[in-house]
Amino acid sequence: MFEPRYVSDLLQKAVDAFARLPGIGPKSALRMALYLLKQEEAEAENLADSILELRKKVVYCSSCRMISDAPLCPVCSHPQREQGVICVVENVRDVMSIENTGSYKGLYHVLGGIISPIDGISPADLAIEPLLERLQKGNVQEVILALSTTMEGETTCFYLYKKMAQFPLKITTIARGVGFGDQLEYTDELTLGRSIENRQPFKPE
Amino acid sequence: MFEPRYVSDLLQKAVDAFARLPGIGPKSALRMALYLLKQEEAEAENLADSILELRKKVVYCSSCRMISDAPLCPVCSHPQREQGVICVVENVRDVMSIENTGSYKGLYHVLGGIISPIDGISPADLAIEPLLERLQKGNVQEVILALSTTMEGETTCFYLYKKMAQFPLKITTIARGVGFGDQLEYTDELTLGRSIENRQPFKPE
Repeated sequence: MFEPRYVSDLLQKAVDAFARLPGIGPKSALRMALYLLKQEEAEAENLADSILELRKKVVYCSSCRMISDAPLCPVCSHPQREQGVICVVENVRDVMSIENTGSYKGLYHVLGGIISPIDGISPADLAIEPLLERLQKGNVQEVILALSTTMEGETTCFYLYKKMAQFPLKITTIARGVGFGDQLEYTDELTLGRSIENRQPFKPE
Repeated sequence: MFEPRYVSDLLQKAVDAFARLPGIGPKSALRMALYLLKQEEAEAENLADSILELRKKVVYCSSCRMISDAPLCPVCSHPQREQGVICVVENVRDVMSIENTGSYKGLYHVLGGIISPIDGISPADLAIEPLLERLQKGNVQEVILALSTTMEGETTCFYLYKKMAQFPLKITTIARGVGFGDQLEYTDELTLGRSIENRQPFKPE
């Protein structure tokens, strides 16, 4: 374990603060602190300001619960997004991943987690009620469940499915199957089995 | 390359600022920013304050050029450190490494680099004059050259050796040889050859 003895309390404080960030150990934290010491003061100020602004000004979208700079996020307020489709995801990062594919034009709903009795996360801890309120308004035709393919994800899908049964909706899940570029011999049996069951017509391009 | 489109300019700004740190790519930077969003505001404030304080308040020791919270660093001002021995190192991190061994009780001198014509670093760019000034005062008996065992390190050692020839000093370098726990068959030939030339009397413990 690294311990910069006889050096600088200020350095130690900065190293400790960096080392609290996820994926950052004491050695990386030291490297980051020493780097900042060598840069212009403006560099450190820019980093500090970005951190404070991020934490103080970023809010959650009142509709989809995505992080946003404004009360309504850019997706929800975009005139060209399909207002009738909602893609339900676990967290903010999933929205970013789907946005980065560029193949989705509807809206999102961030649950903030998935049902997991082991981690003490019950349906009440998730943004399920706000989702049902959005559906209540009646202009949604399809809900896409884009959750993890784990047991917790499947449980959450099933729970949401039951809750949404009262609405005249098309409920879909994202396709599961063998990933592009994957070799069959290295694909797990469950995935391979399901991908054969859910086989689709071949479309020559 | 990650690009959080349609999300948050503030998030993007923080991710960009984190990604400028050494060893941090855009994915790690995003992870750090999202982590801070989930924590209490005090956590982000603590990190931002630590960064600003570090950059604004940390100075370089007027004697050894180590980073320090005070004009004279804790090593230079410590009453029990041997004032007659100076260990010359390349950078701040080397001081920390040697301090962490706990086997050195003398003082340091941080050069701030080593002579490297390829990188455009000449003797004038290093804290060599301040070292000679320290030696001028006359109460130093030994200088230990603890530089990298690269060609640049050897060049710097030789340059310093010539510059220090005017003083009545013992000039030493740290021992080179096969590291503890290393297997002979995996040791490079140069190191192994040198370690045989510089063999030492066996001391049974």
